[in-house]
Amino acid sequence: MKRGAFIVFEGIEGSGKSTQAELLAEALKGQGVKVDLTREPGGTEVSEGIRKVLLDPKLEEMHPRTELLLYLAARSEHVAKRIRRKLFAGEVVICDRFTLSTLAYQAGGRELPGKVVARLCKFGSFGLEPDLTVLVDLDVGKAFSRLDRDQDRLEKAGLEFHKKVRQAYLEYARRAPKRIRVFDGAKEKTMLHEEIKKVVLELLARKGAL
Amino acid sequence: MKRGAFIVFEGIEGSGKSTQAELLAEALKGQGVKVDLTREPGGTEVSEGIRKVLLDPKLEEMHPRTELLLYLAARSEHVAKRIRRKLFAGEVVICDRFTLSTLAYQAGGRELPGKVVARLCKFGSFGLEPDLTVLVDLDVGKAFSRLDRDQDRLEKAGLEFHKKVRQAYLEYARRAPKRIRVFDGAKEKTMLHEEIKKVVLELLARKGAL
Repeated sequence: MKRGAFIVFEGIEGSGKSTQAELLAEALKGQGVKVDLTREPGGTEVSEGIRKVLLDPKLEEMHPRTELLLYLAARSEHVAKRIRRKLFAGEVVICDRFTLSTLAYQAGGRELPGKVVARLCKFGSFGLEPDLTVLVDLDVGKAFSRLDRDQDRLEKAGLEFHKKVRQAYLEYARRAPKRIRVFDGAKEKTMLHEEIKKVVLELLARKGAL
Repeated sequence: MKRGAFIVFEGIEGSGKSTQAELLAEALKGQGVKVDLTREPGGTEVSEGIRKVLLDPKLEEMHPRTELLLYLAARSEHVAKRIRRKLFAGEVVICDRFTLSTLAYQAGGRELPGKVVARLCKFGSFGLEPDLTVLVDLDVGKAFSRLDRDQDRLEKAGLEFHKKVRQAYLEYARRAPKRIRVFDGAKEKTMLHEEIKKVVLELLARKGAL
């Protein structure tokens, strides 16, 4: 029986990670791989309900602890009801954001204590870790110039916040270079896709998922 | 300056705790005490949004971990944005459900590990503890006969679940008899109110909140 694989795309808003996640999903499907493309916060009915609370621009800014707990609630439901099931069924799960987002945004950006966030993340994810995290890195200024105005609550948080998030992403990647691979988000879309696809196909071959 | 006090009402659905919380709030207001009557999950805009997700009977049953994290998210917002502010301002905060609900329902009822739940509760409440918890205890059969049919998702969980919750409540009260006072929910409403009021007024006098 084929084994599943869990691949996560990470990066700041405007980095192009969601586009790259979609391109990878399409490419793998084209090779006959069973793929489940999903996103966080979201991916289940309950988690999408939580997403609405998190990203509602009409709500007043919530406390960083509340935000953290909501992301983890959305994640635990996502892992329990969707991701684990798909992996058990041998599918390749491609997820747009996962634990590394929480570490980069809530610990790096909002400055909650990293160890506490990491411990809570373990609880929220049932200890599930990606086989590979694709970090699409891009300068914050360039990323923002790609975004339309009138963004949701998170994107309103400003340049300085997102610079801290980017630095946190890169720092985590530096500490775990095998699990977190950094790609240059400034590259042309198709070229970047080919680079990511190559690394992912190597992983899937190694895991026996192809 | 007068100091605030934090009084929590607990009990299973149908125990009469919400009615008793309201009666106490009115009685204290009648004596010129500044009272903030609130409830969990809820009490702030964000927390009420979370409450909607938690109690939506149309959503499929969520994982106990998700449920726990959502209750804690609602609580952290409630404590940070409302309860602490009111207490600092010298008000008496009366809250319908707080940490003991999470311990009784998520650890006692859903059987999540008590120590893990307690540790997470501390994070979600910023370590805030009630000055007094009023536990309105009632036999589950009697409580259910008071409730209308067509209840929300939680009340649908059934008799056995609520029996476990009641037992957990009583066990926590047995371990902390000074902080958690048990009252007999089978008593006539006004008589029960007078008993609770007497205990609360003694507490407030002792704390210098009167």
